[in-house]
Amino acid sequence: MATIYVNGRITAEQDAVIPVLDHGFLYGEGVYEVMRTYNGKPFLYGPHMARMRKSAEMINLDVPFSDEDLLSRIRETAEVFFKSQPDAGRSMELYIRMLVTRGVGPMTYDPAACPVPTLVIIIKPQVDPASDAYAKGVKVILVPVVRNHPFSINPLIKSNNLLNNALASQYAMRNGGFEAIMRNYRSEISECSQSNLFVVKDGLVLTPPIEAGLLAGITRAFVFEIGAACGVSVREQTMNDQDLFAADEMFLTSTTREIVPITRVDDRIIADGRPGPLTLKLIAAYRTRAHQLTARQ
Amino acid sequence: MATIYVNGRITAEQDAVIPVLDHGFLYGEGVYEVMRTYNGKPFLYGPHMARMRKSAEMINLDVPFSDEDLLSRIRETAEVFFKSQPDAGRSMELYIRMLVTRGVGPMTYDPAACPVPTLVIIIKPQVDPASDAYAKGVKVILVPVVRNHPFSINPLIKSNNLLNNALASQYAMRNGGFEAIMRNYRSEISECSQSNLFVVKDGLVLTPPIEAGLLAGITRAFVFEIGAACGVSVREQTMNDQDLFAADEMFLTSTTREIVPITRVDDRIIADGRPGPLTLKLIAAYRTRAHQLTARQ
Repeated sequence: MATIYVNGRITAEQDAVIPVLDHGFLYGEGVYEVMRTYNGKPFLYGPHMARMRKSAEMINLDVPFSDEDLLSRIRETAEVFFKSQPDAGRSMELYIRMLVTRGVGPMTYDPAACPVPTLVIIIKPQVDPASDAYAKGVKVILVPVVRNHPFSINPLIKSNNLLNNALASQYAMRNGGFEAIMRNYRSEISECSQSNLFVVKDGLVLTPPIEAGLLAGITRAFVFEIGAACGVSVREQTMNDQDLFAADEMFLTSTTREIVPITRVDDRIIADGRPGPLTLKLIAAYRTRAHQLTARQ
Repeated sequence: MATIYVNGRITAEQDAVIPVLDHGFLYGEGVYEVMRTYNGKPFLYGPHMARMRKSAEMINLDVPFSDEDLLSRIRETAEVFFKSQPDAGRSMELYIRMLVTRGVGPMTYDPAACPVPTLVIIIKPQVDPASDAYAKGVKVILVPVVRNHPFSINPLIKSNNLLNNALASQYAMRNGGFEAIMRNYRSEISECSQSNLFVVKDGLVLTPPIEAGLLAGITRAFVFEIGAACGVSVREQTMNDQDLFAADEMFLTSTTREIVPITRVDDRIIADGRPGPLTLKLIAAYRTRAHQLTARQ
């Protein structure tokens, strides 16, 4: 059960509503971020807020709240969440989804029609993937759904227009996949429907470049950072289907899933079908670093 | 002021809300239609409902309501609208927006999470474009925003994921345009942000083919029908920028705007800068036919 903040009103999920005439509903005109806590603190909060402002700027949407202000609203909402769930220990980690939409106004695309953006914060327990996902790796599906063209809706914009992702994800689910791998309109590998993709080849950790049309994942960037810290080379590289099938290791990254090994693509087994050593090293380094950065003083 | 139906509850616009956890809000997972009345009757209701079902099918969304059932809900909502606006004569024509979304459920793309779709009907007065638009024609802007790739989010799906259209429209507004003309990822002309596009050349009326990646406009199809009825040849043809600048006439079509002459593209005047004779003939034929088809018995 989630606790939801909408423009200053904090309620249980079943009482959280937005106006039909919110352009976030009518047109999907809005941006969002998903964060999670470690040690009760929103992890990489600064980078998430910076990305949300970048997304908003790319659709000319004002975000008239400071990071500090938004953090205090997250804290208020979390307080109400914990009070509403007496069984939830304070050590429970949280999932935090923050949305800013164009707001309410007459039905026109003219931004002047909606002077006040809508702010929504959804808080619920963080749910980790099953431990098997980390121990055995997951199967992903190469889907025919093409990642949005950067000149249509740039994947750099983390927007509520998620139908492209939903269609890809649903195709993967129907085919027994944990995730979908999408290609861009040039048939290069771009990203998964809800995560970024990495392959390991000859000791190098490789991920498609931003120019392939993908979201600049916060966890993706964090992998570059922890890679550098633990002596693993991480680089951007354009890739195609063949690079996936020939990989020594493969994994995906996302805020709520951290680093998840991929051991099958469609019905093909990757390398020996087990999570690889560099993947396991990065998973461990990720967790250690996340806990260090959020340790209570 | 609109009157809005949400899952059986009919209210004034300021009281019409949907849950934050509706996937139509979170992901833009929903489809819609816009209709208008002539003589108080929703025009081309059958084709609009058929297209809505096609859109829904393309995102695997169930629409568990018959056309008759939906029509009676439109009528109920219109009744409330007219009662709430004692000054609105019964001869006022209406704008009708119908939306069906995935519904409310936990945050996953799995359609099984949302067993009950949300139905919304928004009714407000139909507002025609200014009469100058028809008398003098409008200026449109060729925008750099590329129409969605058919394998990403097929433009045949009339969905709530309207950011592509919003970005194009906003670019046109900033440049003084009435509408935006979008190209597809192959640089062929596709459609406008809220209408279909036609050019007249050497006595033929031409419009980009569905394969160019565009919405199969109900008014677009109606132009083929009235063209045939009044001896004007209407055909699909792939076109590029040059075909626009070399046109003898140009116009756009949409449910709420009917047929609007285009006399400028960016800063270039099309032909002699006045609405052309075939365009004017089709405008007149359209209105006559729309009124005939909805005439009270």
